[in-house]
Amino acid sequence: MVNLNDVAQKAHVSKMTVSRVINHPDQVSPELMRLVQQAIKAVGYVPNQVARALVNQRQYVVRFLLLEDVSTVEPNYAKLLIRLANNLQKKGYTLEISLDIMAETQSIDGIIVSGWRTEDLSKLQALDVPVTLYGAAPTKCPLSSVDVDNQAGIEKATEYMWRQGYRDIYYIGLSLDLPFARQREAGYRAVMAKKDGRVSVYQTENHAHLADTLVTNLLHNFQLPTAIVCATDRIALGVLRAVQRVYHIPRDCGVIGFDGVFIDQLTQPQLTTVRQPFALISEKIVAQIISQIESEIILEPNNISISPDIVVRESTRL
Amino acid sequence: MVNLNDVAQKAHVSKMTVSRVINHPDQVSPELMRLVQQAIKAVGYVPNQVARALVNQRQYVVRFLLLEDVSTVEPNYAKLLIRLANNLQKKGYTLEISLDIMAETQSIDGIIVSGWRTEDLSKLQALDVPVTLYGAAPTKCPLSSVDVDNQAGIEKATEYMWRQGYRDIYYIGLSLDLPFARQREAGYRAVMAKKDGRVSVYQTENHAHLADTLVTNLLHNFQLPTAIVCATDRIALGVLRAVQRVYHIPRDCGVIGFDGVFIDQLTQPQLTTVRQPFALISEKIVAQIISQIESEIILEPNNISISPDIVVRESTRL
Repeated sequence: MVNLNDVAQKAHVSKMTVSRVINHPDQVSPELMRLVQQAIKAVGYVPNQVARALVNQRQYVVRFLLLEDVSTVEPNYAKLLIRLANNLQKKGYTLEISLDIMAETQSIDGIIVSGWRTEDLSKLQALDVPVTLYGAAPTKCPLSSVDVDNQAGIEKATEYMWRQGYRDIYYIGLSLDLPFARQREAGYRAVMAKKDGRVSVYQTENHAHLADTLVTNLLHNFQLPTAIVCATDRIALGVLRAVQRVYHIPRDCGVIGFDGVFIDQLTQPQLTTVRQPFALISEKIVAQIISQIESEIILEPNNISISPDIVVRESTRL
Repeated sequence: MVNLNDVAQKAHVSKMTVSRVINHPDQVSPELMRLVQQAIKAVGYVPNQVARALVNQRQYVVRFLLLEDVSTVEPNYAKLLIRLANNLQKKGYTLEISLDIMAETQSIDGIIVSGWRTEDLSKLQALDVPVTLYGAAPTKCPLSSVDVDNQAGIEKATEYMWRQGYRDIYYIGLSLDLPFARQREAGYRAVMAKKDGRVSVYQTENHAHLADTLVTNLLHNFQLPTAIVCATDRIALGVLRAVQRVYHIPRDCGVIGFDGVFIDQLTQPQLTTVRQPFALISEKIVAQIISQIESEIILEPNNISISPDIVVRESTRL
């Protein structure tokens, strides 16, 4: 099997030099880097991950720690996980998945955490590896985080409905006492306050059939053209069903959701929605955790909030 | 930080002995094992993963290699990945995710492959670590595999429709030239041949709106009570919509899907479906790959086919 010796011979340099190029690329000149890389390619050498780890005191592994109840795992995770794995791989790191907050940390360099609750934060802060949160952290929390800007997303959605001519605008939110749910509702209220429009907020659990029942009981109150801004695509699915029994979508009534992961492709008519920017979210999460891992010093926590875009389809007026 | 020394002192044995218990548990007596384990617990020692790996020539890492196009990733993967991670963790292994069939294999012990095509098999066979396929392998393939029994699933579904009193039974299959699609269709045909019933097979791409259009054009031919066996829940979603515009479900027409991952929870009425047994599938995949990794000899390929169950809901007669 091809080893370091073969590379050194091919490049006419010492083994020490080859090792330095592989493990400390920041310490060598671009010309030397190129010379050795060409030799590596020519002989077909694949650096031994375990050896690299030993030399660098680094494992080149990032853990994705999922603290949510596994039975309620949404399709969102499939997309996120695979994008994270892809982005990390480009930087030479592998992604492992764990469900255990107490798992040993000697074999990893950093952790990306999802599905965490406020109660988990003190344990996460106490870990001896860098941690990045998926989902916005509370104000005084010393951990970095990346999230979609929930409030901005629903603000955009509500503004959009106003611009398309709907004036009786409802918000069907989540009856969950969690920050992201409160922020989405706040987005609707902020826009309605600006427009001095009537505020009509209702809440439901995140199930299509419950949203269906709730909105069915509101239909007779609609002052057309009516818009319904929904906290999630699941809710929007139920809302579409309820509304279509009585009104024309999008002429009489427009519906907009939030997520754009999977459900929005399944609705009829096709759902206008606020799309979670998973590509950008995973890019930023990976950039964050790697900069924390590779920094010589402890970095200040960085909280990144990404404003999502609206994907316009058939459930809203053009 | 607690280390091997502390364990040795607590147990009144040498460091060498402690190391042997940790790394070669098969070589020590149960009494010694217990003594050292108690000491480990008492001092709170966590074995260093990298060191363990070096001693055992094992990395305790299994790779999940996803070869499918990332943009079409279905929610199925979220459930499968998390169950795989969970099951591997119980055996002391971590799961990493990779999209690259050519990635180095020195840092891992084995690979679970999903989304592979026949063209990939020769490359996978040539790898120098054990491989287990998710998805049934072709007959002469020397790789082990675990899959749901696609044919048995649709056979059960078709039999069920017959038992519930439906006689005009349609099959809406996938227009994909892949083994699982052909096996599902074969299940329907096998049952209809046994019952000497009329065979009505149609195919569509895996999209709800296409299935909707297809079945809309068949409605006038229905001889009630009619049943529609669908190759996937996505197809069933479209079929439910088409049928409900004209007939009563489940009295006049029954619909059954296949997957039970996510979509079946979103339909109206709630969808009777053949549920992919992900819990059992991931258990078997993990058992397979670990037995291959931990075996002293190369094992014969083992192909496990799991018969799925029907989840009865509201889209079929009781």
